[in-house]
Amino acid sequence: MNSSEFRRRGKEMVDYVANYLEGIEGRQVYPDVEPGYLRPLIPAAAPQEPDTFEDIINDIEKIIMPGAASPACTELETVMMDWLGKMLELPEAFLAVKAGEGGGVIQGSASEATLMALLAARTKVIHRLQAESPELTQAAIMENLVAYSSDQAHSSVERAGLIGGVKLKAIPSDGNFAMRGSALQEALERDKAAGLIPFFVAATLGTTTCCSFDNLLEVGPICNKEDLWLHIDAAYAGSAFICPEFRHLLNGVEFADSFNFNPHKWLLVNFDCSAMWVKKRADLANAFRLDPTYLKHSHQDSGFITDYRHWQIPLGRRFRSLKMWFVFRMYGVKGLQAYIRKHVQLSHEFESLVRQDPRFEICAEVTLGLVCFRLKGSNKVNEALLQRINNAKKIHLVPCHLRDKFVLRFAICSRTVESVHVQVAWEHIKEMAADVLQAERK
Amino acid sequence: MNSSEFRRRGKEMVDYVANYLEGIEGRQVYPDVEPGYLRPLIPAAAPQEPDTFEDIINDIEKIIMPGAASPACTELETVMMDWLGKMLELPEAFLAVKAGEGGGVIQGSASEATLMALLAARTKVIHRLQAESPELTQAAIMENLVAYSSDQAHSSVERAGLIGGVKLKAIPSDGNFAMRGSALQEALERDKAAGLIPFFVAATLGTTTCCSFDNLLEVGPICNKEDLWLHIDAAYAGSAFICPEFRHLLNGVEFADSFNFNPHKWLLVNFDCSAMWVKKRADLANAFRLDPTYLKHSHQDSGFITDYRHWQIPLGRRFRSLKMWFVFRMYGVKGLQAYIRKHVQLSHEFESLVRQDPRFEICAEVTLGLVCFRLKGSNKVNEALLQRINNAKKIHLVPCHLRDKFVLRFAICSRTVESVHVQVAWEHIKEMAADVLQAERK
Repeated sequence: MNSSEFRRRGKEMVDYVANYLEGIEGRQVYPDVEPGYLRPLIPAAAPQEPDTFEDIINDIEKIIMPGAASPACTELETVMMDWLGKMLELPEAFLAVKAGEGGGVIQGSASEATLMALLAARTKVIHRLQAESPELTQAAIMENLVAYSSDQAHSSVERAGLIGGVKLKAIPSDGNFAMRGSALQEALERDKAAGLIPFFVAATLGTTTCCSFDNLLEVGPICNKEDLWLHIDAAYAGSAFICPEFRHLLNGVEFADSFNFNPHKWLLVNFDCSAMWVKKRADLANAFRLDPTYLKHSHQDSGFITDYRHWQIPLGRRFRSLKMWFVFRMYGVKGLQAYIRKHVQLSHEFESLVRQDPRFEICAEVTLGLVCFRLKGSNKVNEALLQRINNAKKIHLVPCHLRDKFVLRFAICSRTVESVHVQVAWEHIKEMAADVLQAERK
Repeated sequence: MNSSEFRRRGKEMVDYVANYLEGIEGRQVYPDVEPGYLRPLIPAAAPQEPDTFEDIINDIEKIIMPGAASPACTELETVMMDWLGKMLELPEAFLAVKAGEGGGVIQGSASEATLMALLAARTKVIHRLQAESPELTQAAIMENLVAYSSDQAHSSVERAGLIGGVKLKAIPSDGNFAMRGSALQEALERDKAAGLIPFFVAATLGTTTCCSFDNLLEVGPICNKEDLWLHIDAAYAGSAFICPEFRHLLNGVEFADSFNFNPHKWLLVNFDCSAMWVKKRADLANAFRLDPTYLKHSHQDSGFITDYRHWQIPLGRRFRSLKMWFVFRMYGVKGLQAYIRKHVQLSHEFESLVRQDPRFEICAEVTLGLVCFRLKGSNKVNEALLQRINNAKKIHLVPCHLRDKFVLRFAICSRTVESVHVQVAWEHIKEMAADVLQAERK
């Protein structure tokens, strides 16, 4: 949508809201629809080509408003999560579409998704062990529980372990910053021999530091064999899997119990919108189910409805699936794919500019929109370069450490980024680097 | 703001956004301001009388835009939480304004606030006991930890206990559905004698069921004496404390470690916005602090800034304090107080209508905007009445159980509610009741 259409449509929306509020007394306080009303009214998958804004607004009046906040808010979310799951070619076990056991939910952040997965896994293993040995207390089990992630995993995984009150161990990643099956297996053997109880593995697809990918095809079968909950955190990279040429990066997801990525990061949906799927929704929903009278409703035991409040930390919910519905339809799958491809192409353009300059090195394989690079030389000179770049405030870079190396990260992530921005940024970085190197020689 | 001004201002905002996006390349990627820039630009307290929309928008350009998303997002939140704290006459220890140790944060929901408080308390007691007895494992301590709330507390408190992996015990409430000091003390003595470790009490001001109030002046001193973390959940009722005539309901907050209420419930701020204050922000921030390189920044050890990411479950944050800033200024404190008073007056109007009808009874003291009532008689007849009312879909009621009684709840909560709505609703309820009673007689 260009700027002039945005002005027009935005103002129409303001009038829509004002009209709604002016006429609110004429509306019924409770909808007439029955649970399950929405899915038949909506296509089973996202459109390939863009829909018009007109079409979408008409559908709001026709499909959403009769369902009021509830059940429309819940049902659109379930269907949008199916749409998105299909875009990623997630195994059908993760979808709610069939009378299966899986389904998706919108969380606020990947941190919450990881935490919910870890807590569900914790409840599950405690119940299983207590069923086998009723004399075991929860605390006695928790004392020995251990979760795993690679040493490249996001800090939110470690934080989930702290919140959940269980040990979290970091598996040393390989030369490509990936968690491998052998390293995981080694840790499992050692910990089991020491009397610990492995129960949870968080694998990362697209690490924050350098967008590396844990080896799911090795890690997944181990988790299944050892009966460990496998959670996949693809917070950033997940959006790319809607492109067939990047879908292979998700191979092995079939071994997982839960999978999460953030459409708010790279799929044009505004913050917050973190998409999480589970194979067995009962694992999540039953972990902390409580049903006081004031939250009971006539449909809750019907099996037809989804009580998302059991799937998340907060009780209240916003209507975040509307954002997905608008974005998926305004762009169409092809438009979203084109957006991802453009970013990846621009990051490779930056990569090749860096590779042409012998003063610099690329520090990790460039797969998606992130380029890790540095000046050949000391951490000190790279820290000086980063400081000079960020002080100039023309571009902004966030660094990381890869092993003992201080590394600069160039991230393609703006909606309006073009080749010219990449080139201007690189010229600027070269200039700053020349200054730093000259200052060092003095 | 009336409808025609909403149309005008809303359309101006659409243009503001479009202009911003069109001119974005001319803006600096990183702000020039230093931490702490914002507080001196903003009054120390909310205005008593409304500001104009013009004034607020001018301040956006002058105060917020130069601070970009960061640090403006963080600093406005800190100042707005101080504004709101002052409106409630919270003890100064909860405010960030002085070089004190307290401060406020916006959470997504009261559930998250309760959970964060319980987790911080858990970390604190574990550290304290491990400092005394280094041989104690975390699990050995957690096995014996016990938290308390009244039997009227919201289910989210029980859920926080389940998530936190600690016992939660319900203290029997008194005849007014309030937790009293004697009942708490009794439970503490019994549990300590059994080798348990009390560490946390969640008191409720304005319970979900019937808007009853735990006795803080009894419970607070016990918590202080026994070194228990006292968290106060005033999710609904908290908004009323901005009125001097309701402020006494908050007396005893000075004994608490953390306090929470939801401006999104009754203070005209859109969902979500849950306000939480702590006396010692280090208790919250240090509970699960992790600082990977990609989240480090040059100011974090300066002591001048607040890293809210340590205060909450998610990592990312939205700019929710903008909603508070607009609402507090558009209404002024007096406008907000008038809004609360009108609702309370209307609930008393409904209460007196109910009391005039001998077929009905009032089931709990009406203090704020909630009226608990029922037909004198069986639960069955009241369940039938509720069903008939909700099936008619002219009004919608949510029931509760008070002890063994099934009770209907009439909640005044719409922005535009007037006396006429209360009267229409009561006429409708009486009509439905007559039908139900007639059907019963057959």
